Amino acid sequence: MRDFSQDHRWLSINTATVRKSHGQEQPLTDIIEACARHGIRAISPWRDQVAASGLKAISGLVKTHGLKLSGYCRGGMFPATDAAGLQAAHDDNHRAVDEACELGATCLVLVVGALPGALAGQAAHKDIARSRQQVQDGIGELLAYARTSGMPLAIEPLHPMYAADRACVNTLEHALDLCDLLDPAKSGALGVAVDVYHVWWDPKLQAQIERAGKQRLLAFHVCDWLTPTTDLLNDRGMMGDGVIDIPRIRGWVEDQGFNGFSEVEIFSTGNWWQRDRDAVLRTCIERHRSDV
Amino acid sequence: MRDFSQDHRWLSINTATVRKSHGQEQPLTDIIEACARHGIRAISPWRDQVAASGLKAISGLVKTHGLKLSGYCRGGMFPATDAAGLQAAHDDNHRAVDEACELGATCLVLVVGALPGALAGQAAHKDIARSRQQVQDGIGELLAYARTSGMPLAIEPLHPMYAADRACVNTLEHALDLCDLLDPAKSGALGVAVDVYHVWWDPKLQAQIERAGKQRLLAFHVCDWLTPTTDLLNDRGMMGDGVIDIPRIRGWVEDQGFNGFSEVEIFSTGNWWQRDRDAVLRTCIERHRSDV
Repeated sequence: MRDFSQDHRWLSINTATVRKSHGQEQPLTDIIEACARHGIRAISPWRDQVAASGLKAISGLVKTHGLKLSGYCRGGMFPATDAAGLQAAHDDNHRAVDEACELGATCLVLVVGALPGALAGQAAHKDIARSRQQVQDGIGELLAYARTSGMPLAIEPLHPMYAADRACVNTLEHALDLCDLLDPAKSGALGVAVDVYHVWWDPKLQAQIERAGKQRLLAFHVCDWLTPTTDLLNDRGMMGDGVIDIPRIRGWVEDQGFNGFSEVEIFSTGNWWQRDRDAVLRTCIERHRSDV
Repeated sequence: MRDFSQDHRWLSINTATVRKSHGQEQPLTDIIEACARHGIRAISPWRDQVAASGLKAISGLVKTHGLKLSGYCRGGMFPATDAAGLQAAHDDNHRAVDEACELGATCLVLVVGALPGALAGQAAHKDIARSRQQVQDGIGELLAYARTSGMPLAIEPLHPMYAADRACVNTLEHALDLCDLLDPAKSGALGVAVDVYHVWWDPKLQAQIERAGKQRLLAFHVCDWLTPTTDLLNDRGMMGDGVIDIPRIRGWVEDQGFNGFSEVEIFSTGNWWQRDRDAVLRTCIERHRSDV
């Protein structure tokens, strides 16, 4: 297991973590400059942030600072109720692959989607099995396209509390079942993003990380689970402030040969997004060294 | 699959559902009288409600109305940091078994507990595997006691979002692993409570219900998952108001021979607990017929 205590060379900042400073949305260009100032070598930006600043501008800034992208957030959201909806998801996912290539990302992270309409509060149906089939079909199709440009796809199993509205792939086991089905050769073109927030509770976690192996472990995300958690989406904790034994999980991942970045991804309306961006980045660096 | 549309003979009310009326805590005696008036044949009371009214009084009232108990809520909370804590849990669980016997409950439901202190906001440690071992040991010990009085124990896997503070058994698969380990003969003394709220998202749900079989299926609880869900604990929905395909899951359970009550268990600070108790009971009856 790598020693993170001496520096932060393996820290990546998911740009959602500092999406807001003092409660105000920040341009991605500013976030990137701030990361560079703090000696952070990698980021993982969100598509909406990239779009707001412009893909070419961000791509240029990333190159200027020699930043790595530990991932690109995000493709997915495959399920739909009709052919037009499926086609729209198809087209959008192809664009996401293209953008990930332009930015030189390590992988495109997939949040696969769930019951159509649920995120807007009105699910079109209750058939999660149907959504799961659409997810399988969607990833299969996208994989063929992503292979042509050499962009790996990382399925991110989300916590089961997001099964209705964000992702109907909720365990590492399920994600790996899809990988085995769609890429049985373990080519490296399809794998998983392991976010401790989503999977820490799973009694089969260690076994499934071992099953994944280096070829399937494309990304490693960290934050912490707070007790109490006051919001299902935007109350994630800073590493060390919650109950997740992060070093133990990182140990399992690195035992498989994973040697990529540890990406901090925190959504926090009430706490971290209210603070000053540079203070948050300093805390991420400290906690990366002490609690990851 | 039984036809629920014509009457509510298989409806049970978990008394937490009408714990409050117009936001005010209600005595269990009143709740029982109300259930009886509505022709409800079964309830599942909580220990704190029973204690507040007195065990003998409740036991008498249950007999007077000829009510069944589809379960008794709840035993469990096994993990602790020291011997005194483990002993306290042990003693309390033995009392819970005794009370369940006095009340004539079908089973004692076990919410097994998780990281000690987490429910109060300060987890004593982050070693969920240690808690899981304490849960296994605790159930094993309690099972020996419960067998002597013929009280079945029903492990209730809770949704993974409660893994830190309420229960570190979070899938039906894990619960059944414990059953197989502690009661390999499938004697009926140990089984599971299947609450759709906790397990609906699980891609292995149907297979695990089949694995459980009639001998292990001791209770069936219903409510619904709302989108959005605004609180991790107290924002459960009424059947039909959310995204869970309840009839499908009931079908799987009944395919195994389960022929017990369908127990409505709704915690709802902002909605159902604000309403009038009798109106809530009428809605439970309607939705039992239309959406379960």
